[in-house]
Amino acid sequence: MGSTKTKLRGGIDLGGTKIQAAVVGPRGKVHGEERAATPTEGGPADVAREMAAALSGSARKAGVEPADLVGVGVGAPGDADPQGVVSGASNLPGWEGSYPLAAELSTALGADVRIGGDVQVATEAEFRLGAGKPYRSILGVFWGTGVGGGMILDGKPWTGRGNAGEIGHTVIVRGGARCPCGRRGCLEAYAGRGPMEAKAREEHEKGTKTRLFKIMKERGHDRLKSSVWEHALEDGDELAEHLIDRAVKALGAGIGSAVNLLDVEAVILGGGLGVRLGEPFLRRIEKQAAKHLFVDDRPPAMHVAALGDLGGAIGASLLFAR
Amino acid sequence: MGSTKTKLRGGIDLGGTKIQAAVVGPRGKVHGEERAATPTEGGPADVAREMAAALSGSARKAGVEPADLVGVGVGAPGDADPQGVVSGASNLPGWEGSYPLAAELSTALGADVRIGGDVQVATEAEFRLGAGKPYRSILGVFWGTGVGGGMILDGKPWTGRGNAGEIGHTVIVRGGARCPCGRRGCLEAYAGRGPMEAKAREEHEKGTKTRLFKIMKERGHDRLKSSVWEHALEDGDELAEHLIDRAVKALGAGIGSAVNLLDVEAVILGGGLGVRLGEPFLRRIEKQAAKHLFVDDRPPAMHVAALGDLGGAIGASLLFAR
Repeated sequence: MGSTKTKLRGGIDLGGTKIQAAVVGPRGKVHGEERAATPTEGGPADVAREMAAALSGSARKAGVEPADLVGVGVGAPGDADPQGVVSGASNLPGWEGSYPLAAELSTALGADVRIGGDVQVATEAEFRLGAGKPYRSILGVFWGTGVGGGMILDGKPWTGRGNAGEIGHTVIVRGGARCPCGRRGCLEAYAGRGPMEAKAREEHEKGTKTRLFKIMKERGHDRLKSSVWEHALEDGDELAEHLIDRAVKALGAGIGSAVNLLDVEAVILGGGLGVRLGEPFLRRIEKQAAKHLFVDDRPPAMHVAALGDLGGAIGASLLFAR
Repeated sequence: MGSTKTKLRGGIDLGGTKIQAAVVGPRGKVHGEERAATPTEGGPADVAREMAAALSGSARKAGVEPADLVGVGVGAPGDADPQGVVSGASNLPGWEGSYPLAAELSTALGADVRIGGDVQVATEAEFRLGAGKPYRSILGVFWGTGVGGGMILDGKPWTGRGNAGEIGHTVIVRGGARCPCGRRGCLEAYAGRGPMEAKAREEHEKGTKTRLFKIMKERGHDRLKSSVWEHALEDGDELAEHLIDRAVKALGAGIGSAVNLLDVEAVILGGGLGVRLGEPFLRRIEKQAAKHLFVDDRPPAMHVAALGDLGGAIGASLLFAR
């Protein structure tokens, strides 16, 4: 079977909970997509195997072979060097060290592989194809297990020395709550789904009534996924409302501060919780952010990420569209 | 007397306390400089008159006429439009509205006048001629009456929609101390010399012992100028040490957060207090910032502004060196 190159690109969004793969056309159309759970045990090689399988599944749905793709982009957590060696992806099993992800995936798929930052590629996807299209300068805020950020300034990605965008680790309460990063008072300590779950568990154990963990079990999950929060809020669960309100205020302070510093035209809210809770919660965050805006007569536009859950994978595919 | 154009440029740094004018050569050499107190009464026309006088004095010392200068740049607070109309410079007497500063100064001096943001021109001066020279991306932090910021990203000034750099109004304690801007928990509420003086006065009136106000009077001032803080610290004044320590921790949190977001190569500390207290305090701020750095194994370089008090005026002169 001879390989015929197509104009399609592969993209894989490697998250702590799920692996989202997609095969994407030159204008961002998704021709096939497949999702897999991120392995919680094993090591980088197991994760890479799941990634290759999800991408192969997406290609099959699109009617192509992985080797026929222009290339496969990956949005990964941690640090990637120019050769595609990924280090310190501490959300992933056994990935404290380094792993040659690009080389291994390339061998498995028979395609070129490039690695980008997970949040940065999702920001670029929104900028080029999604809610950020009308603007030259945007801040992407990804509200999920953690809180990540990406920037496009005057039409170009700004990544600093490679690690810009850590809005989740801007300090909003000096000396405040402990963050998963080990520091205190970071935005993520209040708004990350991880710390929110820890806080909910703590309150629950102290006797605060909540349906959060009941909903979690009913839905067959072992974590407070975004959908669990959504259902608890719909049920009027007080603890869920309290913790989400705390997160909304924290996000408002963090986003307001970032806008005071950067003065971007627009803020795009993505991530599991951001996309799931959507417009009404975006407006609540916007209202909180407005309280902190130094120039308060022309706030930035605020939008929910238009590409939703697929933004990361689509953005990763754009690593081959430059 | 015929006017002979020189290669010299004029620069005026318009601050809330002082007006610093300078005549500057093409490579940043100061040929003449003069300082005046910013009028505390009257209106914009009075301020403009003092500015013209200080610039004329600087020119005289440099042996030229203002009309012989390539042009005169001004670093101003508030907002300047492209025609050099300055609005909302609320630190200055009667300047809540708009005033055609460029046109008025140009008439008074017989030279072209351009207006830039005070903090941004000072950041550019450090980038092109001062402590920021070795770097492509810097954050300038100006610690004085307020706390201002400026950015150079990949060699170019980043001003957003015209108001980027407000690091003084990033939130470091959500719901915390009241800031002069009317909001709560901003960096400036803890580190601005204005709020620090208000807090010192409040503590003093409550009975806390301090030599701050005695030193102020002995030195013939009616405000706690940077030199007053410096002398009180030298005397081991406990209240002064406490409030400076509070400011240092606040600056550390604000700078750490900004670096997490921007990942710049270097941070330059200027402003009245920054320059006056200098290296030992920069190191204390650096230590505090390090506690908040998400990527903590390669902190940005930190330097005191090399151009000192003249950075603003030199930076303003660079408005005619592009």
